[in-house]
Amino acid sequence: MYAYSHGGNVAFERGAEELLDLSANINPLGIPAGVREAIVEAIPNCDRYPDSFSGALREQIGLFEGVNPGWIFCGNGASDVIFRIPRAVGAKRVLLTAPTFSDYERSARSFGAEVIHHTLLAEREFTLDGGFVQAIQKRKPDLVFVCNPNNPTGKLVKPELMQDILHACKEVGAWLVVDECFLDFAEQAEAYTSRHMLATYENLIILKAFTKLFTLPGIRLGYALSSNQGLIEQLYFHGADWPISNLAQAAGIAALQGAEGFIKQTVALVTKARKRVEGELEGLGFRVFEGAANYVFFQHPHPFDLREALDRKGIRIRACGNYPGLDESYYRIAVSTEAHNQIAHKALTELMSSYTKKGDVLS
Amino acid sequence: MYAYSHGGNVAFERGAEELLDLSANINPLGIPAGVREAIVEAIPNCDRYPDSFSGALREQIGLFEGVNPGWIFCGNGASDVIFRIPRAVGAKRVLLTAPTFSDYERSARSFGAEVIHHTLLAEREFTLDGGFVQAIQKRKPDLVFVCNPNNPTGKLVKPELMQDILHACKEVGAWLVVDECFLDFAEQAEAYTSRHMLATYENLIILKAFTKLFTLPGIRLGYALSSNQGLIEQLYFHGADWPISNLAQAAGIAALQGAEGFIKQTVALVTKARKRVEGELEGLGFRVFEGAANYVFFQHPHPFDLREALDRKGIRIRACGNYPGLDESYYRIAVSTEAHNQIAHKALTELMSSYTKKGDVLS
Repeated sequence: MYAYSHGGNVAFERGAEELLDLSANINPLGIPAGVREAIVEAIPNCDRYPDSFSGALREQIGLFEGVNPGWIFCGNGASDVIFRIPRAVGAKRVLLTAPTFSDYERSARSFGAEVIHHTLLAEREFTLDGGFVQAIQKRKPDLVFVCNPNNPTGKLVKPELMQDILHACKEVGAWLVVDECFLDFAEQAEAYTSRHMLATYENLIILKAFTKLFTLPGIRLGYALSSNQGLIEQLYFHGADWPISNLAQAAGIAALQGAEGFIKQTVALVTKARKRVEGELEGLGFRVFEGAANYVFFQHPHPFDLREALDRKGIRIRACGNYPGLDESYYRIAVSTEAHNQIAHKALTELMSSYTKKGDVLS
Repeated sequence: MYAYSHGGNVAFERGAEELLDLSANINPLGIPAGVREAIVEAIPNCDRYPDSFSGALREQIGLFEGVNPGWIFCGNGASDVIFRIPRAVGAKRVLLTAPTFSDYERSARSFGAEVIHHTLLAEREFTLDGGFVQAIQKRKPDLVFVCNPNNPTGKLVKPELMQDILHACKEVGAWLVVDECFLDFAEQAEAYTSRHMLATYENLIILKAFTKLFTLPGIRLGYALSSNQGLIEQLYFHGADWPISNLAQAAGIAALQGAEGFIKQTVALVTKARKRVEGELEGLGFRVFEGAANYVFFQHPHPFDLREALDRKGIRIRACGNYPGLDESYYRIAVSTEAHNQIAHKALTELMSSYTKKGDVLS
């Protein structure tokens, strides 16, 4: 229907009830305890407008993130926050990596900003390096997006490099958006977050969401962190009023109640499963890019469409050919429950063995 | 916290649990039957992304409105739709009435468009007339907003005039947005809707919401109708993905099930109550502007702040001094249940009688 796509829009296709969806990257633990009850309890309040400023929710996020609730803006999913940012900062030149999450570019284009791609190289494992700092200094953008870990590659940005990027942004007068929506899945989250730089750098915006970590994509709840009060006000100004429903505010507050234990359990589960999936994919002859999120990015240099082939076996993965900087040989697969991961592994094993038998060239 | 305000943000003020909120205009009938159950049933699906295109919900809205579901775009409240419109049409000059709902202007400014106010006159009861058609022809805007009935005045636009406006818009190459969010409260809704012109005029966009009619401000659900498929695609492009949560989609579908009876009951209740409130306000010496919505717009030309005075009595009404084209003497009060309307009438009677006794001049 329109010219962009993400993973996870599976359930609404014809016959999709049969598909195992590994194209969206959602926490295999499912929706946290207490969320259901909180939503049910909030239903009668839907005859009143929500709190435009999500005060009670921001209090809880503040405790969770260890930041002042005044530094938080809540939106209708991270996507809503992303769309407000170019307007809030009046962006004219936006620097992005290629590949990365497509909404950054779309939000920039929606505001009419020029988009500059910094291409990450397969031979460097798509890892961000000092070349990005030079690109900032040379191209002088006013808005820079970095996804950490990056979607779809799963690659983390080293803390020293992130500090250099942030410093370079400050020097050229650019805002830096660090998207940490997948960071809490990483064992190294505390070492890799840019949160500690918020107080010092007023040009830093961190993006987070309840979508992936708390298994709530159907709720639509994301947020930005920034110590810059002018920015927070502009985020309110440049988009719909009352962005968060009463139900989503209640769900978010409930999800955060047991967050510490939930995240520990998530990280343990996902780390183990990701390593196993990475190993299995390598065993099948794919080129695997070791990552830190709840998905695995890999290359399949064979002359057939892996997504289509898996679709016929009832499994949906994300074909990454429509990411700038990638081609049709790249794919992303979610790390899910043990049972789901095994179904996918079995299907991939069958596929690869059948293609080998048929004499297709494995390059 | 920021420089604009609406009614209905009452519940989050200190001590607000004591306030009777007549600043927001919500259906006194409350949330329709079946909505609660539908939300509860949808909770387990929140571990999946919503349908970006709200397919099932658009089917139901299509039946309700009698239009092709492909002509519908659903957003996170009408406010979300309003914010997408200037971008979707690339607006440069936006024509609005003064007064009218503030989000039109904010959305235009957020996109950097020039805003032209067409001032409605108190001596003409703030009614739209042929002068607006001339303003379109003379000022040549590319986007025009008309609120029907207008917020906060409650005034309807005559069907022949609306046709002239739409025709003038077409001639100068402008889009016309007709906001009908309050129209279903009017007895004359069928005669006054612009829906029948959608097929003929590809420059027409109609706005609707579940907020007021179905008593669901806490859910965030609004939509646009347009036969222009290019526009519908642009509305998807220029804003957050997955704009409607699974819960809101389920709530909307459920609300529409018994819509016909619910609306009949609403119109009967609101029409009777509105006439009574209008009469009572006139009886107290206010200048009342007869309207067609579930609120009453009136002028209080006395030297004290009616909103503050009512606040002290535990009742919140909407002071309209911050609408362009109005001053501090204008107010809007919701038409609510008989009991609530009577509480407000009693408080106003006391206030006016006490001020008269004190010898304040009633001009």
